[in-house]
Amino acid sequence: MSSSYKLASRTNHPRNTLIHVGPVTIGGEEPVLIAGPCSVESRDQIMHSARVVAENGGNVLRGGCFKPRTSPYSFQGLGYEGLDLLVEAGRTYGLPVITEVMDSEDVGRIAEKADILQIGSRNMQNFTLLKAVGRTHTPVMLKRGMMSSIDEWLAAAEYILAEGNTNVILCERGIRTFETATRNTLDLGAVPVLLERTHLPVIVDPAHACGVRRWVAPLAKASLAVGAHGVMVEMHPNPAEALSDGEQSLTFDEFASLAATLVPAWAAVC
Amino acid sequence: MSSSYKLASRTNHPRNTLIHVGPVTIGGEEPVLIAGPCSVESRDQIMHSARVVAENGGNVLRGGCFKPRTSPYSFQGLGYEGLDLLVEAGRTYGLPVITEVMDSEDVGRIAEKADILQIGSRNMQNFTLLKAVGRTHTPVMLKRGMMSSIDEWLAAAEYILAEGNTNVILCERGIRTFETATRNTLDLGAVPVLLERTHLPVIVDPAHACGVRRWVAPLAKASLAVGAHGVMVEMHPNPAEALSDGEQSLTFDEFASLAATLVPAWAAVC
Amino acid sequence: MSSSYKLASRTNHPRNTLIHVGPVTIGGEEPVLIAGPCSVESRDQIMHSARVVAENGGNVLRGGCFKPRTSPYSFQGLGYEGLDLLVEAGRTYGLPVITEVMDSEDVGRIAEKADILQIGSRNMQNFTLLKAVGRTHTPVMLKRGMMSSIDEWLAAAEYILAEGNTNVILCERGIRTFETATRNTLDLGAVPVLLERTHLPVIVDPAHACGVRRWVAPLAKASLAVGAHGVMVEMHPNPAEALSDGEQSLTFDEFASLAATLVPAWAAVC
Amino acid sequence: MSSSYKLASRTNHPRNTLIHVGPVTIGGEEPVLIAGPCSVESRDQIMHSARVVAENGGNVLRGGCFKPRTSPYSFQGLGYEGLDLLVEAGRTYGLPVITEVMDSEDVGRIAEKADILQIGSRNMQNFTLLKAVGRTHTPVMLKRGMMSSIDEWLAAAEYILAEGNTNVILCERGIRTFETATRNTLDLGAVPVLLERTHLPVIVDPAHACGVRRWVAPLAKASLAVGAHGVMVEMHPNPAEALSDGEQSLTFDEFASLAATLVPAWAAVC
Repeated sequence: MSSSYKLASRTNHPRNTLIHVGPVTIGGEEPVLIAGPCSVESRDQIMHSARVVAENGGNVLRGGCFKPRTSPYSFQGLGYEGLDLLVEAGRTYGLPVITEVMDSEDVGRIAEKADILQIGSRNMQNFTLLKAVGRTHTPVMLKRGMMSSIDEWLAAAEYILAEGNTNVILCERGIRTFETATRNTLDLGAVPVLLERTHLPVIVDPAHACGVRRWVAPLAKASLAVGAHGVMVEMHPNPAEALSDGEQSLTFDEFASLAATLVPAWAAVC
Repeated sequence: MSSSYKLASRTNHPRNTLIHVGPVTIGGEEPVLIAGPCSVESRDQIMHSARVVAENGGNVLRGGCFKPRTSPYSFQGLGYEGLDLLVEAGRTYGLPVITEVMDSEDVGRIAEKADILQIGSRNMQNFTLLKAVGRTHTPVMLKRGMMSSIDEWLAAAEYILAEGNTNVILCERGIRTFETATRNTLDLGAVPVLLERTHLPVIVDPAHACGVRRWVAPLAKASLAVGAHGVMVEMHPNPAEALSDGEQSLTFDEFASLAATLVPAWAAVC
Repeated sequence: MSSSYKLASRTNHPRNTLIHVGPVTIGGEEPVLIAGPCSVESRDQIMHSARVVAENGGNVLRGGCFKPRTSPYSFQGLGYEGLDLLVEAGRTYGLPVITEVMDSEDVGRIAEKADILQIGSRNMQNFTLLKAVGRTHTPVMLKRGMMSSIDEWLAAAEYILAEGNTNVILCERGIRTFETATRNTLDLGAVPVLLERTHLPVIVDPAHACGVRRWVAPLAKASLAVGAHGVMVEMHPNPAEALSDGEQSLTFDEFASLAATLVPAWAAVC
Repeated sequence: MSSSYKLASRTNHPRNTLIHVGPVTIGGEEPVLIAGPCSVESRDQIMHSARVVAENGGNVLRGGCFKPRTSPYSFQGLGYEGLDLLVEAGRTYGLPVITEVMDSEDVGRIAEKADILQIGSRNMQNFTLLKAVGRTHTPVMLKRGMMSSIDEWLAAAEYILAEGNTNVILCERGIRTFETATRNTLDLGAVPVLLERTHLPVIVDPAHACGVRRWVAPLAKASLAVGAHGVMVEMHPNPAEALSDGEQSLTFDEFASLAATLVPAWAAVC
């Protein structure tokens, strides 16, 4: 299968890829902390979130503007209006921003403003979209499909790399299994496998996997302990009123507490 | 969850949806047989295939022109040139044609020529694409995502229906499980569940699930026995030289033999 | 892996194994219908069930006496008292009986009375138990573990065969997957794989897989269509009051209706 | 479902259960390290292993004597002779010993010598065996079935508790999923779920899940980071010649290196 991902393979590129986004380096010795609300909902919400991210040592601000939702009747995001709010919040607090892109037609316009483009799990094998982001030079965070093998994931990354964009970040976010106690099953065993097979940075998103706020912090610590280059978490000023993913979003206090423990945890286990 | 698919739900639409494509009705008493090569490879190949489909009582000609492939280095299809060949072959032998569409930008152009648009498994939750085919009036066959629950699948169908296109056909093609003896696990139990929950027609594609030519015929018979409205199979003049999916494609003789047994099987079990 | 099951392998034993149980042959041209309640609950219940099985052409009477239950607080079966009732009912109506054995210490005593010993899914790799039934000459029906690959299942059968008992029947009953619309996912694709790899008879139990009474009949038909040597179903005089598995048990009328369609279905598809 | 495990539930027993085995406490503040070869193979092998475990701060010596093997033709263990060697090695180096019990008939005899009885994954729902170990007072480590939900696992623990044995330890060892890059998928998300639902100690066995020696250490660190009360690893003087599980066994040097990093890792993340 490794012939499906020769550009992504560590065999052909032994050194880790470092991805520079403003002041942040992803893939290096220092772990990164990506945080923000699931969806951008209002100016107040994203500005407040950005401030809390920055004050607690977070590195990148996340916020969804175009939301892939299982049901056509769920909140679909604020679109470009949300993107402008996200960018404003990021600039105000000195944080690069990441947002999801769902449509190849939107890639150019979003890439002008966002610092990192996210490809969501459901689009991991949307090859048209992969090629479109591959034709930009904006860093891309490729989330693992919830039923995709590691090798299929690396082959999906290859679609981006093969178009010329070398700035690809992988994000483990849980796979679908028979277990229903957690929303998905976080596959932390994938991290050492990836670190062996590819030179690309690996981020872990524990909240989408477990689906419950209380379990995010221990899984975030474990993600760094197993060797990930960073974690991405969701937080919200008032999770109970979030328009999406409230159950797995941290409160600001919970986020502050998590942030305070992650860096020493990382230092100890390396 | 049924609030995610009110248009697809049988509760709100008790009678079966019948989809008329040229002389063929999908969703009615008579099962349909959709057949053809995985990919259109040449004029000879598709013309020969179409003749064999027609001569053996097949109802619809399939052929991929735009191919979603795990690896960017695999054969990606002949594109619009392939589509023209497919349409020519269908017209010559009186068969409506079905082909996959992968990109929302291509929907309009493909819908002008193809009789049925296929949404592949990897794109089942490509919501941009679902909305785009929903804005046409061309029948759409929505394949189940290999990671998707029945309810998520119906919610994906809802995206198409909600845009105004009522001609949606569902196609079970196997789900991903731990078992590796077969390529995927054909979920025939999904058929009676679907027949209860939705009014949309249900087709089964046994070949993608089992991945081995010898096992296609018994699974096709079982698909009709369990109540599906039809089956879709792959065949090729010379499977050993097929550019994609050769291992699961029937030879023409195997196809003729399968076609000869399907209709009596259906009659007996209804 | 085939070295793990050389006695079970068709390579070393090309002809189908036929298992004779009283007047019934399992593994031959005629499909068998095994039916009865999940648990033996009372003399009336099992006698009535046996009569209905016999009157509708059923071949073997099933009834659980020792029940493996997820919770220690669920009904655990009537034990040897239930076995005596089961045997009495079988003799009265001329039906061989099958019951589950859970403990190697019980094997000898149960084998004196039952015609077929069932090994349940949870015990498929209880190697002590497999060896114990292997030392009898009583036919054994080995249900697939809900977590077990086809090759592991055949290797489990090998434990029985290697002890000298050649009368092993395999029973597909669904595997565990992410899909929750059905209780488990019936893997009918396993049937043609088994028919190729082994000479042992293959029975399908659709009710444990789907978990819902209404879906049992279509899956039973599909099981014969795909090539199984028979089906096993649960029925009960009053499913709503059954002490176990009521939701998936057929009423007597539903059973009669299913039995009436199975044989013609089989004839048509062979 | 919690009615299936009222004795195991934290609701009814808010404080952590502490299990005392010789000088070791399992379930308390200090993590435990259980180590040793997969199988006891010879006096030299187990004595040497025990010395290395003790010298590096390991707390409990593991060694299989009765081995559940997928194939009847694989090495089945040294039996009681192996148990005597294991006990001798443990006594020599001051380590309590744990070994697997597969048969209810063996429970009494093994419980006289071993300090902890292990129930393997394949026997997690062997209810006869669970009841048998429940009638002893020897601590029991119950490994999770590879396709068992957390609630089924707790209900299996309940079988032991309900017989009167309160000394139950849970051991996560990976679940079966579609991913084949690792042998199974280690479900570290189960750890915080368990810590919430039950008062029983939770150990993680990363090697059976990943199946590759190089990935054991990062997953062991992550296991402590996520909150487990200890880890169990396999090591062998010469993994290439191990009679079972050589691929996932650590060398003595790798074990020493792992042991040296685990305790500081634990301290930092608590």
